[in-house]
Amino acid sequence: MELTGKNLIGNEESGKGITTFFAKNPATQEYLSTRFFEATTSEVDESVAKAKNAFHIYKAKSNEERAVFLETIAENILELGDTLIKKCMLETALPEARLTGERMRTVNQLRMFASVVREGSWIDARIDTAIPGRQPVPKPDIRQMQIPLGPVGIFGASNFPFAFSVAGGDTVSALAAGCPVIVKAHPLHPGTSEMVGKAILKAARQTKMPEGIFSLVQGISNEVGMAIVNHPEIKAIGFTGSFKGGKAIFDAANSRAVPIPVFAEMGSVNPVFILPGALKERNEIIAKGLIGAVSIGVGQFCTNPGLVVTLKSDDAKQFLQNLKISNSENPSGIMLSEQIKNNFSKGTQNLLSSENVSLISSGSGEETGNRVNPKVFSTDFETFINDGSLSEEVFGPSTLLVSTNNKSEMLQLAAKLEGHLTATIHGTEKDLNEYSELIHILEQKVGRLIFNGFPTGVEVCHSMVHGGPYPATTAPQSTSVGTAAIKRFARPICYQDFPQSVLPEQLKDNNPLKIWRMINGEMKK
Amino acid sequence: MELTGKNLIGNEESGKGITTFFAKNPATQEYLSTRFFEATTSEVDESVAKAKNAFHIYKAKSNEERAVFLETIAENILELGDTLIKKCMLETALPEARLTGERMRTVNQLRMFASVVREGSWIDARIDTAIPGRQPVPKPDIRQMQIPLGPVGIFGASNFPFAFSVAGGDTVSALAAGCPVIVKAHPLHPGTSEMVGKAILKAARQTKMPEGIFSLVQGISNEVGMAIVNHPEIKAIGFTGSFKGGKAIFDAANSRAVPIPVFAEMGSVNPVFILPGALKERNEIIAKGLIGAVSIGVGQFCTNPGLVVTLKSDDAKQFLQNLKISNSENPSGIMLSEQIKNNFSKGTQNLLSSENVSLISSGSGEETGNRVNPKVFSTDFETFINDGSLSEEVFGPSTLLVSTNNKSEMLQLAAKLEGHLTATIHGTEKDLNEYSELIHILEQKVGRLIFNGFPTGVEVCHSMVHGGPYPATTAPQSTSVGTAAIKRFARPICYQDFPQSVLPEQLKDNNPLKIWRMINGEMKK
Repeated sequence: MELTGKNLIGNEESGKGITTFFAKNPATQEYLSTRFFEATTSEVDESVAKAKNAFHIYKAKSNEERAVFLETIAENILELGDTLIKKCMLETALPEARLTGERMRTVNQLRMFASVVREGSWIDARIDTAIPGRQPVPKPDIRQMQIPLGPVGIFGASNFPFAFSVAGGDTVSALAAGCPVIVKAHPLHPGTSEMVGKAILKAARQTKMPEGIFSLVQGISNEVGMAIVNHPEIKAIGFTGSFKGGKAIFDAANSRAVPIPVFAEMGSVNPVFILPGALKERNEIIAKGLIGAVSIGVGQFCTNPGLVVTLKSDDAKQFLQNLKISNSENPSGIMLSEQIKNNFSKGTQNLLSSENVSLISSGSGEETGNRVNPKVFSTDFETFINDGSLSEEVFGPSTLLVSTNNKSEMLQLAAKLEGHLTATIHGTEKDLNEYSELIHILEQKVGRLIFNGFPTGVEVCHSMVHGGPYPATTAPQSTSVGTAAIKRFARPICYQDFPQSVLPEQLKDNNPLKIWRMINGEMKK
Repeated sequence: MELTGKNLIGNEESGKGITTFFAKNPATQEYLSTRFFEATTSEVDESVAKAKNAFHIYKAKSNEERAVFLETIAENILELGDTLIKKCMLETALPEARLTGERMRTVNQLRMFASVVREGSWIDARIDTAIPGRQPVPKPDIRQMQIPLGPVGIFGASNFPFAFSVAGGDTVSALAAGCPVIVKAHPLHPGTSEMVGKAILKAARQTKMPEGIFSLVQGISNEVGMAIVNHPEIKAIGFTGSFKGGKAIFDAANSRAVPIPVFAEMGSVNPVFILPGALKERNEIIAKGLIGAVSIGVGQFCTNPGLVVTLKSDDAKQFLQNLKISNSENPSGIMLSEQIKNNFSKGTQNLLSSENVSLISSGSGEETGNRVNPKVFSTDFETFINDGSLSEEVFGPSTLLVSTNNKSEMLQLAAKLEGHLTATIHGTEKDLNEYSELIHILEQKVGRLIFNGFPTGVEVCHSMVHGGPYPATTAPQSTSVGTAAIKRFARPICYQDFPQSVLPEQLKDNNPLKIWRMINGEMKK
């Protein structure tokens, strides 16, 4: 596929702007050859105008038609084959196995949402039938369902060029809900974005979806994204990225004449609590697992475990040794960009600027260019609790061990945590009984609690919650991974005393779609 | 019941502040005798501290215990008998029949939420079971459910002293979800609020609920409410009232160090579209019904129909005559306060300040004190579309008829509407077919669409949506009436690979609560 570097405004390739940029190979720090055109405000406006038109047509498509559209996107992404993986490797320096895995995850995600759309019950149909003779006033017939919000703006993330980017979880859940999507491509992988964007547009044409159902805009400056956020016809925003970026979008969206919801996932430190029994039984295994979770993807995961809490003991000393051993031959990895690498360096330097924080291990590789070694730091409870900067996320392969003197300090530390995506507990069943208070505290802090595992795998399934209290997200009542993510892009409406002929299929008496519905309070199909 | 005028901080009656105020009888404009103490910031802090403690205990209560608590509140409110109704009449000047009806609605609402809690499926349990042998990585066991947010602040509304006030829809849905509640009483009915607050606290003691599960604070200044909104331990806000008030709370909540969701229902103009066939068939009936809906409760309903759109025709001329006839003997009614009456006067004067708006009818009563007559205004399409001030809500018994020249103008008017709680269409089935585009436009504008009825009755049922796009609410993805309102005060969490012994009842394999759950994508019980 020949890249043009242009914005995809519906079916039109458009490069009207004067600002252009090039992607850079993070491994060699050389610029790649395609010149990308930053979208102008009028190009953004055009994409939104097309999306608004498309919305009314797309709304009327059947569940089956929408499902086939999503499945066709999946097929078209697979059809790009090695070319896509190669381009993405050049832009991100992520290894081939990781990228083929992530592509499969993305493709399966599209298929899973297709099945959710086809099944159809997600719209939460509720029917209360009339009681015309009720005293003192008749009871009307009321029927509720979820309807799509309208055109949605999605920001691609740097760290998952497939799964959280152009055809990632935000895009697919918005399309599944019935919303046209305008994606702001992440400037660290604009070529990958163009290829995937074209796969989506091809699927739209193949399945006769209206032009404007999808657009892709490129850009390196904040203006492009903000033009989307501030456009009056944009009804919601999906974002995965930094706290700074997410917060700026959240504030802008709330300052609009008509505020809109922002579903921003802004990363997290993902604390891991290792309880005494587990440390005795599985010391080496946990150490190995933790080092693996810290360094996978060069630590560039929202669910990277950046904080580990243990209790002072001989087992804890042994654990430190095991971490050193596990990390000692860990190779260095190439971060996604020079800026991300520099931020990682600053973050780790900040940890060391506290005199009671020590670097206990740094992997074995060379740290040239954007290459960094996985790092393990340690400190004590007093230091951690009194220095707020130590609990900030260091994006990259780094974790900080905090040694507490007793259970009370561990609970105190947990209670002081801000909102995170996940928290993990390693323990025996006996540990869990003794530390039940810890579970109760952590339930208030996170979207996902993991037992005897690591947070870095985020399963795409019906039950996943990839979310959590602020500042992990701006929307703790939602998830950005898993099928429940579709709910973000819909809202309820009810119809009172509407004739059968005019009601949506989902709410007709004879239930033509055979979906689950709540009828006078009872679930029926 | 002897009123003390004090704040109810958990079980403690507290009046530490120096600001005090009295309620006023809107009919006589005389002050009532009880002196009420505005809550101090430290009293608010104390109520939140007690709520935080109560949260951990309340969370552990069974569904049955919570349900009995809600039912006991209902019984205690009924037990207050005539004393409550009499006090409320003095404070609001609303007629007895209206208030006994509203009390029954409130009591039934408490019982309906009790049944939702007892049934238990609302927490949306989802279970995906493990596949340990899956390639390339094992599939973990993931289980999701909704958990309560924590202490919630609720603002009582002036216009529904029972149903949208101390024990109203916001309070009951928050308590049902598992959240302690702090109510800021509306200063127009502080005595009614104290009585209902004590009924709630009595129920809490009777059913052994923790102190702090409920507190009631009084106040006339904004500081009291803002102290609740800005308290770091408050996790969400429920509000029904003016746009100005709701917007101020929304902005404050978004400016907190940790922003919180604000479920503010801020009123609406509730447009009514009368299509040609309906106007021919039911001209007089619709006119009578409309005048009834405009004047019920002296027009002080969020769902008051303040805008009526017709097509120019002889039937429309007849309709105007029928409205005049219906309204001609309509008595005046007493508004809730002098300020509300003054705002109504300003609003109606503003309508008349446009030279193309005429007052076509004003009821037959005397307009002394806080008494106002129901008023019907009319204008043409051009005037309405070019003067934005004409589409603003006039809170009270007033409606504005807009005559359009053709279908295209009617659709244009609909497309220009902001977000509203409701829209109503009067039509024949033939009308609906011809005006299907109107339905599509209105679906984008409102939370509830009514056919051949009036918006003023808001049925409390599973399917109700009392909400809608901004500026009708700050949270278009929710409803503040009906059982789905419970979702506002909860968020999802998931447990990964947790042992059965530690999982919440709702997520255990053997489904001890016998609730509906989604298991590997299929609904099961």
